[in-house]
Amino acid sequence: MADSVTPSRPPLVALDEALASLLGKALPKLPAESVATFDADGRVLAQDLVSALTVPPRDNSSMDGYAVRVADCTAPGALLQVAQRIPAGTVGTPLAAGTAARIFTGAQIPGGADAIVMQEDTQPVPQEGGLGAVRIEIAPAAGQWIRRAGEDVAAGDVVLRKGERLTPAALGLAASVGFDRLQVARRPRVALLSTGDELVMPGEVAPEAMKPGAIYNSNRFFMRALLHRLGCEVNDLGIVPDKREATIEALRGAAESSDLIITTGGVSVGEEDHIKAAVQALGELQLWSLSMKPGKPFAYGSIPRAGGSAQGRCHITGLPGNPVSSFLTFLLLVRPFLLTLQGASRVAPEPVQMRADFDWPRADRRREFLRARRNAAGGLDLFANQSSGVLTSMVWGDGVVDNPPGQTIQTGDSVNFIPLASLLA
Amino acid sequence: MADSVTPSRPPLVALDEALASLLGKALPKLPAESVATFDADGRVLAQDLVSALTVPPRDNSSMDGYAVRVADCTAPGALLQVAQRIPAGTVGTPLAAGTAARIFTGAQIPGGADAIVMQEDTQPVPQEGGLGAVRIEIAPAAGQWIRRAGEDVAAGDVVLRKGERLTPAALGLAASVGFDRLQVARRPRVALLSTGDELVMPGEVAPEAMKPGAIYNSNRFFMRALLHRLGCEVNDLGIVPDKREATIEALRGAAESSDLIITTGGVSVGEEDHIKAAVQALGELQLWSLSMKPGKPFAYGSIPRAGGSAQGRCHITGLPGNPVSSFLTFLLLVRPFLLTLQGASRVAPEPVQMRADFDWPRADRRREFLRARRNAAGGLDLFANQSSGVLTSMVWGDGVVDNPPGQTIQTGDSVNFIPLASLLA
Repeated sequence: MADSVTPSRPPLVALDEALASLLGKALPKLPAESVATFDADGRVLAQDLVSALTVPPRDNSSMDGYAVRVADCTAPGALLQVAQRIPAGTVGTPLAAGTAARIFTGAQIPGGADAIVMQEDTQPVPQEGGLGAVRIEIAPAAGQWIRRAGEDVAAGDVVLRKGERLTPAALGLAASVGFDRLQVARRPRVALLSTGDELVMPGEVAPEAMKPGAIYNSNRFFMRALLHRLGCEVNDLGIVPDKREATIEALRGAAESSDLIITTGGVSVGEEDHIKAAVQALGELQLWSLSMKPGKPFAYGSIPRAGGSAQGRCHITGLPGNPVSSFLTFLLLVRPFLLTLQGASRVAPEPVQMRADFDWPRADRRREFLRARRNAAGGLDLFANQSSGVLTSMVWGDGVVDNPPGQTIQTGDSVNFIPLASLLA
Repeated sequence: MADSVTPSRPPLVALDEALASLLGKALPKLPAESVATFDADGRVLAQDLVSALTVPPRDNSSMDGYAVRVADCTAPGALLQVAQRIPAGTVGTPLAAGTAARIFTGAQIPGGADAIVMQEDTQPVPQEGGLGAVRIEIAPAAGQWIRRAGEDVAAGDVVLRKGERLTPAALGLAASVGFDRLQVARRPRVALLSTGDELVMPGEVAPEAMKPGAIYNSNRFFMRALLHRLGCEVNDLGIVPDKREATIEALRGAAESSDLIITTGGVSVGEEDHIKAAVQALGELQLWSLSMKPGKPFAYGSIPRAGGSAQGRCHITGLPGNPVSSFLTFLLLVRPFLLTLQGASRVAPEPVQMRADFDWPRADRRREFLRARRNAAGGLDLFANQSSGVLTSMVWGDGVVDNPPGQTIQTGDSVNFIPLASLLA
């Protein structure tokens, strides 16, 4: 087979431009479904949550202690009769002047009281019968240890907006205003497909039995975990042989039941890659040479479903086969795409400014993502080997420095750092 | 019932001291079990992973292009006969002088070749029969686009250490050296128990039917989600009535099947709290008044299992009932405890230095955790309401400022910021 005429060096596409173009294709959004609030962690909210409640509903105590009138205890050591006892969940009676109410955290403040004295600042004085008296050792300030009604939420407030990706704290907030079910976007259904005849699976071939040129498929492992962390249902199709017909069949089947097909390998400019031809045979394909290192080649396409246009099209993203390239193009392009498909309002990584404790003297014409980690001195150390084949860099590092094209870095420079944790939660 | 004599203001325990003491109690470590690498995300590794492989096993190409001898193409435009074709997964023959090998990403470099020219820097010259020739438009540097054998891992290297918490990248690394199964710590079994007669469940009581003093149980929602994110098996016992006998029964049952019982509410100094008495009746309890705001009261205890010492003891942590206090004491104390129980080597949150774009003029005698979020200018904004009842602060904020006791903050100051994402992944 003669080589087809290869294009000369293709123009680089800026990553932001490619991302904007990709996110514009994330249509239609996934439909909403109702799930129990208990099961909604990580999902994207498909409704504005409007509170029917005021939280807290009434002024209440934020301490165990005594509800008092400040005017009754301006001098230290004031002695007050304990006239009532208000555990959380019960309602007291208006506080008579010269008396205190024994009160517990969360209990409603009785009428007339204008401060809580925490019990560590009091001395109980037992008396026969009744609730005894209490000595107020430290004069209270008006309003102290009182949580005001509506301090958290007022009735009618939107407590969580459509498009918010739910976290544990957000679930707590939804529950605190009474939502036991939430409308969220359906989980994305993602088919995963690796290509490359050199790939073998751990467990199927022992290290000592590896043939020359063979490598273990590592992409499939981190990709599945990344997709699960994003709340996707994963249909793992495994390693598809580097054959055109097999690739077409695998893609055609996956398109029927998936929102997105992710392929790793098979999108660089070499003609050994059957993915491109297979997608082109079934639907449309757009190839990008991204200004991104690692991670230059990237493809987006779509495949119509058998039912025709009424059934819509399945998206497909083609990622490079090198592990680090594959990992980073997933986090920087596919992850935002999957979040956008769910209607999420914030999808881009948010870098922080940090100090480089390293030199990077050789600029690249591409935007580089350098694997780095925070050190005890509050700066960033660089992983020695920035090759795209070196997956150890993504384990050693706790983030990547987002370095513009043509930019060198000197020790002490301020750089944009994207913490990995922010892309994994 | 008369009040028992209450202690005067108890001494504050430094958070670091309490944490060290708590982590010292995380014994015995949970036993190891073997799981599929595909299912090991988030688990703590219970073995050193030693590679039997060198990765990559041999020098290979990191580009689609041509393998050449640099000496043959020192002048731009050199024309070389294409003598062979080496797809990934196949092995070529030694490269004769004056020839090039068509080569693809991942394919092994043939003997004699000392550089790869990417195909964008070449022009194929078709010829009848054979593989044609290629014009090398840019003279290559020795070694370019060659990934060296062992660049990622050398045989005998420990690629992941015992105690490492597995991430998607770590799973990929383990797979890349052939591990399809991993020894990891068993998942912690955690029983969850809320107390407080004022608590009602969303879905059981509608907002308009809430009785005075009643509040929705929000802790149970975020706590379950936080525990699931930590890889725990959760046994949710719901809301236990504020009654001594009911509490004792619930704790006794949970101790039999759990590694840890987490209670929320019921550990402040007020005598309405039956948790303390119940744990003391069954086992041991230690109360801390933490130098921490929000989150002062915290309890650690243990309950022997029915089988006696051979069955060991169940740990118990008592968290405050206020949502933010409960959330933060979980993240700063219970999370490290559960990771330590699994043998994790890094368990403490790792703050980053950031610039405060706010003033905090009133110092507290306790160490404060102020809810804040990063702004577009690279600084931190503060949530207006820092009350411990205000769960909205944990949704609005993307982290907390760790502010030492007695410390005020002025705009422009450098502060310790703990990103929430780092505690949620």
